[in-house]
Amino acid sequence: MPSPLPRDPIAQARDQWISHGWAAEADSMAAITALMRSASIFLQRADAILKPHGLTFARFEVLALLGFSKRGSLPMNQASRLLQVHATSLTNSVDRLEATGMVRRVQHPTDGRTRLLELTTKGKGVLIDARQDLNVQLFSNSGMPEADAKDLSQILSRFRHSQGDFL
Amino acid sequence: MPSPLPRDPIAQARDQWISHGWAAEADSMAAITALMRSASIFLQRADAILKPHGLTFARFEVLALLGFSKRGSLPMNQASRLLQVHATSLTNSVDRLEATGMVRRVQHPTDGRTRLLELTTKGKGVLIDARQDLNVQLFSNSGMPEADAKDLSQILSRFRHSQGDFL
Repeated sequence: MPSPLPRDPIAQARDQWISHGWAAEADSMAAITALMRSASIFLQRADAILKPHGLTFARFEVLALLGFSKRGSLPMNQASRLLQVHATSLTNSVDRLEATGMVRRVQHPTDGRTRLLELTTKGKGVLIDARQDLNVQLFSNSGMPEADAKDLSQILSRFRHSQGDFL
Repeated sequence: MPSPLPRDPIAQARDQWISHGWAAEADSMAAITALMRSASIFLQRADAILKPHGLTFARFEVLALLGFSKRGSLPMNQASRLLQVHATSLTNSVDRLEATGMVRRVQHPTDGRTRLLELTTKGKGVLIDARQDLNVQLFSNSGMPEADAKDLSQILSRFRHSQGDFL
């Protein structure tokens, strides 16, 4: 992270928006820009914590999803839906995870047309260690008070629902 | 966007976190994951709106920043700080913007060691049209009520301040 800016650049952009005659859109522009900027701060922190484990946050999410599934495996298309990532992005993540021996693609036992994604023993171990580091270094120490985290979840849950993220 | 999921996957992950004994980290994990997922929804929408203008949201932000600067130009390192993006990411964006004639790199008039980034006439025109589309299609129609947008801005402003984003 570079040194702090003397003024919040998003507050400055909001002022510019208002002075250019787009006052009606200024708060929404500021909120959306702040959301993207904050996500990028968290993603940089998460990726830095996960790098020693050979993971990015996107690849960690794949391992975590498989780890929570009943059989430790899921069809690719279901993983893509649950992670809300495009099939090509998921394929990239899975290629990397397979190359480092953390997951493998296997045939579905009864449905010949479906390929399952399965956590390996190595993948299970990496998941446990990586999740421990994320819990300690990021989630226990996010820089966000508990009340703010709860409010944020509620606001974003309403938003994600409005966007068709879940029923 | 694929069809909505029957249950919120972040709420499911939060339940899993609690049942695995990480209750103290569950709310923070849910808030951070929701933040990244919501930012990705907004980024996909913004990129789709900007594609016909030959822009991504990252490149739009460069144009918007230059458009608000007093002289229509800024030193590269200052643009990098204000956009809080790494110098290499900014270089990528600027390379694409320069290739399509929207910005140019010029010599600073008095400081020979500094290169300025300057908006071209074409870049100014594209900025005006692209910003109009973002205002109408995204910021006026974000899917987030005004009160939520304001609360979100305040929560994220406190968070960004805590992370050294601005003084």
